[in-house]
Amino acid sequence: MLYVTRKIQFSAAHRLFNPTFSEEDNERIFDKCNNINGHGHNYTLEVTVAGNPNPDTGYVIDLKKLKKILEEEVIEKVDHKHLNYDVDFLKGIIPTVENITVIIWRILEGKIDEGTLHKIRLFESETSYAEYCGEPVDIIVFPH
Amino acid sequence: MLYVTRKIQFSAAHRLFNPTFSEEDNERIFDKCNNINGHGHNYTLEVTVAGNPNPDTGYVIDLKKLKKILEEEVIEKVDHKHLNYDVDFLKGIIPTVENITVIIWRILEGKIDEGTLHKIRLFESETSYAEYCGEPVDIIVFPH
Amino acid sequence: MLYVTRKIQFSAAHRLFNPTFSEEDNERIFDKCNNINGHGHNYTLEVTVAGNPNPDTGYVIDLKKLKKILEEEVIEKVDHKHLNYDVDFLKGIIPTVENITVIIWRILEGKIDEGTLHKIRLFESETSYAEYCGEPVDIIVFPH
Amino acid sequence: MLYVTRKIQFSAAHRLFNPTFSEEDNERIFDKCNNINGHGHNYTLEVTVAGNPNPDTGYVIDLKKLKKILEEEVIEKVDHKHLNYDVDFLKGIIPTVENITVIIWRILEGKIDEGTLHKIRLFESETSYAEYCGEPVDIIVFPH
Amino acid sequence: MLYVTRKIQFSAAHRLFNPTFSEEDNERIFDKCNNINGHGHNYTLEVTVAGNPNPDTGYVIDLKKLKKILEEEVIEKVDHKHLNYDVDFLKGIIPTVENITVIIWRILEGKIDEGTLHKIRLFESETSYAEYCGEPVDIIVFPH
Amino acid sequence: MLYVTRKIQFSAAHRLFNPTFSEEDNERIFDKCNNINGHGHNYTLEVTVAGNPNPDTGYVIDLKKLKKILEEEVIEKVDHKHLNYDVDFLKGIIPTVENITVIIWRILEGKIDEGTLHKIRLFESETSYAEYCGEPVDIIVFPH
Repeated sequence: MLYVTRKIQFSAAHRLFNPTFSEEDNERIFDKCNNINGHGHNYTLEVTVAGNPNPDTGYVIDLKKLKKILEEEVIEKVDHKHLNYDVDFLKGIIPTVENITVIIWRILEGKIDEGTLHKIRLFESETSYAEYCGEPVDIIVFPH
Repeated sequence: MLYVTRKIQFSAAHRLFNPTFSEEDNERIFDKCNNINGHGHNYTLEVTVAGNPNPDTGYVIDLKKLKKILEEEVIEKVDHKHLNYDVDFLKGIIPTVENITVIIWRILEGKIDEGTLHKIRLFESETSYAEYCGEPVDIIVFPH
Repeated sequence: MLYVTRKIQFSAAHRLFNPTFSEEDNERIFDKCNNINGHGHNYTLEVTVAGNPNPDTGYVIDLKKLKKILEEEVIEKVDHKHLNYDVDFLKGIIPTVENITVIIWRILEGKIDEGTLHKIRLFESETSYAEYCGEPVDIIVFPH
Repeated sequence: MLYVTRKIQFSAAHRLFNPTFSEEDNERIFDKCNNINGHGHNYTLEVTVAGNPNPDTGYVIDLKKLKKILEEEVIEKVDHKHLNYDVDFLKGIIPTVENITVIIWRILEGKIDEGTLHKIRLFESETSYAEYCGEPVDIIVFPH
Repeated sequence: MLYVTRKIQFSAAHRLFNPTFSEEDNERIFDKCNNINGHGHNYTLEVTVAGNPNPDTGYVIDLKKLKKILEEEVIEKVDHKHLNYDVDFLKGIIPTVENITVIIWRILEGKIDEGTLHKIRLFESETSYAEYCGEPVDIIVFPH
Repeated sequence: MLYVTRKIQFSAAHRLFNPTFSEEDNERIFDKCNNINGHGHNYTLEVTVAGNPNPDTGYVIDLKKLKKILEEEVIEKVDHKHLNYDVDFLKGIIPTVENITVIIWRILEGKIDEGTLHKIRLFESETSYAEYCGEPVDIIVFPH
């Protein structure tokens, strides 16, 4: 088993709030992340694929091909968007770095046809990131 | 003459559009930066002060003090905000990295009391930044 | 299971030596790290917490809260200090990056009340770091 | 168990092709990496050693010693070289980042005498890397 | 006057030698950079354009447009190439980071139609780079 | 004119205080940097040399040679040292990043024999740095 990873970046706005909370609770719990007009980040997505290198190519998966999958399935849909309003697969989700990471896993899971999706790491800033390897997690989808 | 620099970060949303342009022109000119709900960045601000080191302290300006000025005058007002709607000093300004840099210069100019404000560099992403040293520049303020 | 990580930095001096060794042995074994007046580093601490995102907030642990814990329990006590002399919880410990990492684990272990402390990574420089996940390790405390 | 890691860099040229493929297949599969005169990278090698810290030194392995092993066993042989032609231990291997990582593991495996070799991570660029922990992998050596 | 900068990367092989030197002199002067099969780097190119922001757009030059110029005029021609053999505009040039920087300036000079080309910085590695602002420099082109 | 730059790192301890100040004034002015046992940093030194590339080599100055000068003249004397006590050329100097930068300039000024020393940049951390180009500056040397 080997692991290969491709990093890729996108820039997006988001706002953290729970539509079933009072305004005060959203303010208290999400604090400055609850700003009504949103704020934003340069996100760095790292996607790791596990497998044995193909003896004919030496590739677990061609990283140029992995990049293309990431661009088509994720980056084109989230880059220069507002994650609360513009992205179908995030509608009704509180867009914390944890939840976005899980959702990106679910999108990519069926799309990697060489090797196996192994880990997703998502940086929201240079100092904060989430990692996920596909274990069952419940994410609530609020009516939207 | 010596130069000392302090870097500091903030996260914000913005949208690029000119209110006097047609929707088509805004779309054509600002492209994905024109997304109506906005997008966002982790900005890195670098502020450079020029001067001679004070012989008694060895400081051009105490960088801890410079950091405090930057936090009070800039970061608290732009961090986790939408630059088009939430920031008084950016109201009516197209928030390109160029324009934000000039506006931050104007805010800081009167606030540095040791040494002289020399340069402001603002990164919008790891690959794009603006620099400004205070030469006269006209920035249009649109009615808002 | 998801993992969230917060990075934070501190600057400190240290000196590596074993008080039961001869001067020659300390010199031979710890080499330039044995300089009697100490030397120093900008350390980067990464703390990873594991858990399921709270369905109401989307947080494993609020990373702003994790940052506050790290500042109060670790950073305020080690930043701008000499690790051999100024830090109660490092007294009598050889302050290698390995030992500091284990000690920080023991301090943080009881302080994380959402999710579970999963991993601590400590960079001593851009090229050297230690990682620890809480498995039993013996660290000698020399009389001090 | 603790893990310590040392990073080190080298600069090298390589060309990806399978000598049993037609020119067209090499072009189609390896694309721009198949350029006949080669291209190159600044590689970053990260080597992780697992173990308990020696109670007398606080070291899993002295990272200065690990650096010396890496320089002698790997860096001196690959730095400022063409990986297809100049490196004995890579002769006949398709020098993908995956294959190089496995080969470096095999070279280092017998050379670490404090702690145990745990993981090798090799960056080919800031956005692409491979990781390997020593599980059995077949790598084809083509006649050369 | 404001300055905006776009960074972009490419990966290439090169070999440093002077065709009029003896083999011994090339070896002595260029040392490991003289390896006959070449070696390589991930280069980072930073291009700075000076100008006043267009009042209608807030742009000195649209950095997306600048990126496109850099890709078409430079990156497509040098990325995944051997700089000594595959690049028309470098034929007969000793491809030091200094000389490549000057040649890229000459290529870009006529291509920037908003603002003025102000500076080119080229990193050969994280620790070595050249900068050039267009002052007259003689570069010898050897017969090739 | 071209500019070439070499970066190099060192790790050192220091303490900021003015021996003619009262303990209270040192505490008030230098704050946490005044800790009596010192603290430390990973410093990054960037040295820029200006010149025309030698037509025979394409080098302003061979950056491998520049690195060797920096190692011999600066790094060997400051790396893994306490800047207040262990470094002859810093004795009696308040070791702020400003003052260290000026002193390193004075040391290097006579040692660069190809091209001309143009700029020294010294990072004390990722967020704080000084720059100096050799203009006259007075630095007080306290009795020691």
